[in-house]
Amino acid sequence: MPEIRQNIATKEWVIISTERAKRPEDFKTSKQKEPLPEFSEKCPFCPGNEEKTPYETYVVNGPNGKWKLRSVPNKFPALISDLTLERKNEGIKRSISGVGNCEVIVESPIHNTTMALMPENDVRDILLAYKNRYLCMSSDPRMKLIVIFRNHGLNAGASIEHPHSQIFATPVIPFHIRTRLEEAMRYHDETGECVFCKITKDELNEKKRVVVETGSFLSIVPYAALSPFHMWLLPKRHMSTFAEINDNELNDLARNLKTTLAKIYYGLDNPDFNFAVRTGPIADKEVEHYHWYITITLRLLRTAGFEIGSGMYINSSIPEENAKYLREIKTR
Amino acid sequence: MPEIRQNIATKEWVIISTERAKRPEDFKTSKQKEPLPEFSEKCPFCPGNEEKTPYETYVVNGPNGKWKLRSVPNKFPALISDLTLERKNEGIKRSISGVGNCEVIVESPIHNTTMALMPENDVRDILLAYKNRYLCMSSDPRMKLIVIFRNHGLNAGASIEHPHSQIFATPVIPFHIRTRLEEAMRYHDETGECVFCKITKDELNEKKRVVVETGSFLSIVPYAALSPFHMWLLPKRHMSTFAEINDNELNDLARNLKTTLAKIYYGLDNPDFNFAVRTGPIADKEVEHYHWYITITLRLLRTAGFEIGSGMYINSSIPEENAKYLREIKTR
Repeated sequence: MPEIRQNIATKEWVIISTERAKRPEDFKTSKQKEPLPEFSEKCPFCPGNEEKTPYETYVVNGPNGKWKLRSVPNKFPALISDLTLERKNEGIKRSISGVGNCEVIVESPIHNTTMALMPENDVRDILLAYKNRYLCMSSDPRMKLIVIFRNHGLNAGASIEHPHSQIFATPVIPFHIRTRLEEAMRYHDETGECVFCKITKDELNEKKRVVVETGSFLSIVPYAALSPFHMWLLPKRHMSTFAEINDNELNDLARNLKTTLAKIYYGLDNPDFNFAVRTGPIADKEVEHYHWYITITLRLLRTAGFEIGSGMYINSSIPEENAKYLREIKTR
Repeated sequence: MPEIRQNIATKEWVIISTERAKRPEDFKTSKQKEPLPEFSEKCPFCPGNEEKTPYETYVVNGPNGKWKLRSVPNKFPALISDLTLERKNEGIKRSISGVGNCEVIVESPIHNTTMALMPENDVRDILLAYKNRYLCMSSDPRMKLIVIFRNHGLNAGASIEHPHSQIFATPVIPFHIRTRLEEAMRYHDETGECVFCKITKDELNEKKRVVVETGSFLSIVPYAALSPFHMWLLPKRHMSTFAEINDNELNDLARNLKTTLAKIYYGLDNPDFNFAVRTGPIADKEVEHYHWYITITLRLLRTAGFEIGSGMYINSSIPEENAKYLREIKTR
């Protein structure tokens, strides 16, 4: 029988469609992928092509003295920092100047690797770069929110295949984040508890939807997963913004994220995906009601008119089965 | 300079990205499309294959006595009506049984046509079918919202190419709709006016973003369009739910919708798209603060991690330029 589930934190509804349900292994990407080369002469992110990107804002060198990670401004930035923050309200036309900051973090000199295959230490370096760039960008008083995300594969909107993440600073709190904050605040107001702490506790007790548990983090297929293998990666300790993560937690997150992504990589044949760090706004540091997490969305199916029209989702797989399938995948 | 615009009704923010901006004609779908046959033996919606779909709930016959439009239950329904409505709250697990109604409206016996190419009268028959099925489905007291939508093309999630619409009845008000209602109510509370009536009035005055104006409707590229050629089609008269549309308005909507879709068809070489009727909940008939409309989303680009992470959009085109381009397209 189909069931409609609600995410207690976001209040989003999803139809768990048993009539259309597929087995977890049916979601393996069947498409034959061309193996990528280790180095591509035309790639702007490959070593030797550094002049194709703007100046470095952050760099990590390897033992050979060459860079192993670099952060550079986006060459075609959606938002630019060299602008005055100005707000206009003219009838229905409400706008703000496109102030912001957009950077690209080139995660490795190797063209054909990905976090799932990297050594844990290299994943840690990427996460440390996130934290450093977060702290630097958030010191600009015009900025309200830092959005860290990663697109993997063409279906996930990655125009360059070389492994990279992106980090944006925006001068507004998007509606999406604002409603999450409001819902979280309402839950806290009623129960005295953070709703994400409650989810963490309940999921660890029930275990059925947990994929990877490490010392400080857990990855789950949420009870109301919006799509097949949709995942959340949550810190066990309450933290409202990403930058509050400490050194030990960074190491542990590297282990958890790498393992979670490797399970997806091996279990589903390297599907296209996006992940994003859903951190609280810069100003909401250390608030009691919000809790940051990473959301992972696999691009296995397309959303269509029903999702657009209602904002409700149809998930043609069972979250508990998805989690079990990934738990049992060996990551070598 | 980039600009961040806010939709005054939905409160969604979008970055109008001038650094990445493309000209309207750059969005033409370059992909060569195989012309479709008028009839396909394997198509479950083609005449002669009626036994491949469940019983008819609604039918319109042509002058030749054969059907020209039929509505049938979805063969793989996401929601089913033969279930008891039951709500469960167990810790973080909140659910409701998958009660609902899912129908498919086969719009024409011709396999390779589409609303943009149909006679206005046939489009009117489709819209009348929407209204009739809306009224019938909404008489079930378990239902809260009727979602009418259409997927055109593979990128828009259409698994069957034969022209068809879908209509779902759901037993919950999705979060998406609830937040729109709350925002609309807040605007009404402050101004005494419906925010969609305000948009209609301002857009008709300014004219820059209007694409097609007919007696009772207007189609626009909204000021804060979320993606290239994203459109809204609004009734000029205030109506909160779709079923309040009268006969004259149905005729006029057929004219406006057909012309709007034809401009997209000819101007952008038949791109994939979704449209959805964003009506108020069944119970919110004739309320002062909400106003139904049709939203049209072209599937020209993919959303990626930034959109998923923030709920903010990046639009690499200028809404006013998109509207001007479509206004000037001749629809034969």
